Amino acid sequence: MKTTLEIMREAKEAAPMLGWVSSPEKNRALTAMADALEEAEEEILAANAEDVEASRERLGPIMTDRLRLTPERIRGMADGIREVAELPDPVGKILSKTVRPNGLVIEKTSVPLGVIGIIYESRPNVTSDAAALALKSGNAAVLRGGKEAFRSNKAIADALRRGLNSAGFSPALVGLVEDTSRDSAREMMEADRLLDALIPRGGAGLIRSVAENAKVPCIRTGVGICHVYVDAAADIGMALDIVENAKTSRPSVCNAEEVLLVHRAAAGEFLPKLSKRLRDERIAAGKTPVEFRLDPGAAGYLDGTPAGEDDFDTEFLDYILAVKVVDSVEEAVGHIAAHSTGHSEAIVTSDPGAAEYFLNRVDAAAVYVNASTRFTDGGEFGLGCEMGISTQKLHARGPMGLEELTSYKYVVRGNGQIRG
Amino acid sequence: MKTTLEIMREAKEAAPMLGWVSSPEKNRALTAMADALEEAEEEILAANAEDVEASRERLGPIMTDRLRLTPERIRGMADGIREVAELPDPVGKILSKTVRPNGLVIEKTSVPLGVIGIIYESRPNVTSDAAALALKSGNAAVLRGGKEAFRSNKAIADALRRGLNSAGFSPALVGLVEDTSRDSAREMMEADRLLDALIPRGGAGLIRSVAENAKVPCIRTGVGICHVYVDAAADIGMALDIVENAKTSRPSVCNAEEVLLVHRAAAGEFLPKLSKRLRDERIAAGKTPVEFRLDPGAAGYLDGTPAGEDDFDTEFLDYILAVKVVDSVEEAVGHIAAHSTGHSEAIVTSDPGAAEYFLNRVDAAAVYVNASTRFTDGGEFGLGCEMGISTQKLHARGPMGLEELTSYKYVVRGNGQIRG
Repeated sequence: MKTTLEIMREAKEAAPMLGWVSSPEKNRALTAMADALEEAEEEILAANAEDVEASRERLGPIMTDRLRLTPERIRGMADGIREVAELPDPVGKILSKTVRPNGLVIEKTSVPLGVIGIIYESRPNVTSDAAALALKSGNAAVLRGGKEAFRSNKAIADALRRGLNSAGFSPALVGLVEDTSRDSAREMMEADRLLDALIPRGGAGLIRSVAENAKVPCIRTGVGICHVYVDAAADIGMALDIVENAKTSRPSVCNAEEVLLVHRAAAGEFLPKLSKRLRDERIAAGKTPVEFRLDPGAAGYLDGTPAGEDDFDTEFLDYILAVKVVDSVEEAVGHIAAHSTGHSEAIVTSDPGAAEYFLNRVDAAAVYVNASTRFTDGGEFGLGCEMGISTQKLHARGPMGLEELTSYKYVVRGNGQIRG
Repeated sequence: MKTTLEIMREAKEAAPMLGWVSSPEKNRALTAMADALEEAEEEILAANAEDVEASRERLGPIMTDRLRLTPERIRGMADGIREVAELPDPVGKILSKTVRPNGLVIEKTSVPLGVIGIIYESRPNVTSDAAALALKSGNAAVLRGGKEAFRSNKAIADALRRGLNSAGFSPALVGLVEDTSRDSAREMMEADRLLDALIPRGGAGLIRSVAENAKVPCIRTGVGICHVYVDAAADIGMALDIVENAKTSRPSVCNAEEVLLVHRAAAGEFLPKLSKRLRDERIAAGKTPVEFRLDPGAAGYLDGTPAGEDDFDTEFLDYILAVKVVDSVEEAVGHIAAHSTGHSEAIVTSDPGAAEYFLNRVDAAAVYVNASTRFTDGGEFGLGCEMGISTQKLHARGPMGLEELTSYKYVVRGNGQIRG
């Protein structure tokens, strides 16, 4: 078994060649990785069955389903790699060019970051997704998945490395950390001479721990306490559709709505209809109803439990919605400023003044007027892929595609210039 | 005295308005800050005299000179603020615009970072420079200067705040930390709910401490072990000029050369001439001669002391140059990869193949062919200003101007879209 330090060192040594191989060569390697993944189907399914068997009781049905691989899912992962191969190469673009009065020609050129560390939790498809996005953007990847998916991740990474090898690339470009104890995460966080960036993907606890402890520059991702504000001038039908979609289409993801703010002038019509849509109709259809946590102002309009102290600061990731009635768009914006995680925030309104006020004043990665927060996603934004959603402001904000996995350097050509 | 936490909280509360005031309003505030600085000349000089008096013995002549203010230097600071006012506003630019197939209109728009913390050392002019750059880019600044410049920094910040106030802006937009103990630096590093970015400006020890301990996303700046490689195909006269400029024009700054690599084929002609230029001629002119630290391969060509173990990994910031003879451009690039801090690296050559090889393969913020490393500077690169030089790859790399002090957000306009 290689140590985490060895894996990072080998990745750092292998990484530079990705800065100067051509796009077709990188794409050939990606295609070989996809093929090797499909060829290893049997081996991956066997390893995954062991993972599932070992964790089934502890994880429960939803998490077990996330962990489980099928032939279809493996083909999906391989196709995902082939799609990444078809995206435009983000490296080697001239971002700006200046000729200075002294004759120096300065080109700002996109380059890979180098080695990207990714610490993630249970879904094994992240192993192939992250490796493919890193490679396409010219970066080596050092992957550290969760303990419960280790056998699956290992079988996937082994297959990807066979693909790399068959294409003449170093297998060290996709490193999988074999130590799944906390020690390896700590070693990655401290390796600021080996890793150029660290991306944690997972729950709020993981993100916070990495943000607090990493010496490596890191990108906080994915904690979303997302708000939808239904304005006095909202189209009530549209507001119902948007809140339903933002809350219930996939409650376990970071761009799902957690908090509903409703203008007092709309509350009387909107909230009873919302209760019907998200509780009565869902119960009738055999779906999980939404539980409402209500501030005193909302409690008069629909049934629910009184909101507790933390309910406006919690990422429920569940069929739970905190509801508050406000007196103005200003109050809504103020509430969001105090409670948002800076992910995605929406206003539903037909009043252009209220919309522009909200869009200008709310400080988040994505701000919406008359659309669901669920669109905050690399694919939906047209990036073609996604390495996670940044909730910090340095480097990248919102969905991170290939460009967000690059840096730049200044290439300066002179003919003997010295500085006076 | 306000606590550091209070100063950061007030800055965070004041910051948002800078996101939506107009450019002319910000420029009016900057002009008022410049005027107030000049009006406070007497007060600033008196405070500075106390600082100088208190630290003179401990600091020595060079550092004391950095600390000392004069009427000219104060006018220079005020003019610097006026120049910042004249630069283009980096906020509110639409960086990209997409219309998605579902009709969503997605604009990626530049926005301020929010609150920027800056931890710096002795030069009091950083107080006005950093405050002006932060304000122009829509950010509040929380400034923590060195103990020995505290009285000067306080007088400067007080003047800037009077200017802000007279222009109708909150004085809290320029916060000066009054606790100059290590506690305040630690409080800033941990304040990831109050500061959006932290920029350390100073020596390698400060940078390292911030990079290792900060929970706030930070930008490592300014440590430069810069190399100049004189190739076999170098124009010897040009190489002499460039090495002289890179080493001696201002040895105390981060873009000065610390290491010289010379191709064996050029060493016989180049190194004796370099010794003459950097030692004999400087002594004859009454200037400080350069001390050479020589690897065994260089020792045959010029006089100097044998290089010790650390001499190729030291930022001397002095009239000292480590010299090594190499057999190829590949060896030069390999040496740089092993010893560089990723700041600025140069090749002197007339061979386009060697030049392109070097420019492609060397991983640094700025790579040069036939020019001095001393050009790595916001002003010289045409950015108009500089908040420091980033040596990391996340967010910004190389000189940071106004654009590098901004983030972006996605503004999404719909007409009821929900995600399927």
